[in-house]
Amino acid sequence: MRLVRYGRPGKEKPGLIDDFGKLRDLSGVIDDIGPEQLSPKALRKLAKLDPETLPAVRGNPRYGVPLAKVGKFIGIGLNYSDHAAEAGMPVPKEPIVFMKATTCLNGPDDPIMLPQGSKKTDWEVELGVVIGTRAQYVSEQDALKYVAGYCVVNDVSERAFQLERGPQWDKGKGCDTFGPVGPWLVTQDDIYDVQQLDLYLDLNGKRMQTGSTSTMIFTVAQLVSYLSTFMTLEPGDIIATGTPPGVGQGRKPQRFLKKGDQLRLGIAGLGEQQADVIAWQARP
Amino acid sequence: MRLVRYGRPGKEKPGLIDDFGKLRDLSGVIDDIGPEQLSPKALRKLAKLDPETLPAVRGNPRYGVPLAKVGKFIGIGLNYSDHAAEAGMPVPKEPIVFMKATTCLNGPDDPIMLPQGSKKTDWEVELGVVIGTRAQYVSEQDALKYVAGYCVVNDVSERAFQLERGPQWDKGKGCDTFGPVGPWLVTQDDIYDVQQLDLYLDLNGKRMQTGSTSTMIFTVAQLVSYLSTFMTLEPGDIIATGTPPGVGQGRKPQRFLKKGDQLRLGIAGLGEQQADVIAWQARP
Repeated sequence: MRLVRYGRPGKEKPGLIDDFGKLRDLSGVIDDIGPEQLSPKALRKLAKLDPETLPAVRGNPRYGVPLAKVGKFIGIGLNYSDHAAEAGMPVPKEPIVFMKATTCLNGPDDPIMLPQGSKKTDWEVELGVVIGTRAQYVSEQDALKYVAGYCVVNDVSERAFQLERGPQWDKGKGCDTFGPVGPWLVTQDDIYDVQQLDLYLDLNGKRMQTGSTSTMIFTVAQLVSYLSTFMTLEPGDIIATGTPPGVGQGRKPQRFLKKGDQLRLGIAGLGEQQADVIAWQARP
Repeated sequence: MRLVRYGRPGKEKPGLIDDFGKLRDLSGVIDDIGPEQLSPKALRKLAKLDPETLPAVRGNPRYGVPLAKVGKFIGIGLNYSDHAAEAGMPVPKEPIVFMKATTCLNGPDDPIMLPQGSKKTDWEVELGVVIGTRAQYVSEQDALKYVAGYCVVNDVSERAFQLERGPQWDKGKGCDTFGPVGPWLVTQDDIYDVQQLDLYLDLNGKRMQTGSTSTMIFTVAQLVSYLSTFMTLEPGDIIATGTPPGVGQGRKPQRFLKKGDQLRLGIAGLGEQQADVIAWQARP
């Protein structure tokens, strides 16, 4: 299933994309797509629906983050060896864990805002993992049972805030709009092998990042198991699993985002995001 | 006002502590104490109540975290120069920002659980700042207008997870129960000068930490202003503002928490926490 939330910011309705790519409204069936709707039982119930019986949605509505009430937005650093190399950092012996402020969540096609004074805002296409069942000290073997599904995440990062203003990265990871997620939350049964997904990112039509989840240092199962020893993972938590090479900071010369830039990024089977880069502005 | 939430975990009711130290029930007036109840307007409304008209609560109920729906739990590192010295780290030029997982929130007197395999779980008494109004790029001069109130926070930290397993601290800061908050959320009008509050922490009856918010490197106003340039601060966000010296890691010899230890910690005017240290266990 490809689950979505569509409509104006803060007023999103639940929906799904049917096999023909048509958006169908789910608001007659569930109130929203949030932690309660992500359990294996709740997802099985949704999977039994015949999409043909759901109202088709006309027009081209905006997509929001495909799940509501995200409790934690966890990031993994340097999880592709070639990206670690371009960042000039050693391949980590165990996963590097940071947190993105949940206020940075952004619809997949919503504009990305440059923080005031930002000179080094950068892109990072990443596989996002959405937790479906509470996970505490789960084994690597069992870990994927706790996953509801996957989505595209852009782990937008201000490199000066992240790296030049003290030892901790979170300052540069959670600025407003730095967490575009979606368009779809694709349930696990629709993904044959999560470690065989191609990722890409284009800046102004030019390919910047190309990668495959097959070259992750730590697999999704390893990450979920690992994280569950440091904190309880709850339904609706999102894990951004690291980015392949090709970020602006790693280019020669370096290239960071500026007003008017356009990003297009996606993962095979998980859909595509398209975002304009704009100056910071207060959101309502 | 001293606002509280009391009752069984997950079933807490709102209350307040009257001038005679008596717990009064607020559930006839508000549903809960959450982001909606923390605005200046909502707090003014509560302040107009005559506590005598509210039902007194009998017995000694458990206290929960004094606010619900905490969106972000932000930590500040090394914000007391003498603590930076004992940690063997330089006094930071600007605030060090990390994030505590919101799943680590814990009632003020609830047991603190040692993560499995933990050998270096440590204590940190801290002033907690609760945001009342959305803050984006606010000036230092205006910053306190965005604060609803203050509370005691124990920024429990697993030093091996924090410092020996990669460069980012969040792994050692957000383990389950690592964020006791409360007992009270004291509104700002009840605090004459937030930079003149004494803090203390006892382990098994022996004083370990003594400090005053007067020796903070960055003041509360500076921290709120600073953070608001990296992320939108929302009502219900909590900022743990750093700890004075006397943590277990800084002692000679080092002393970390073990099963059976008892912590007592408090801040003048903000109440006291008492917690037993136990082994990790699944919580319902």
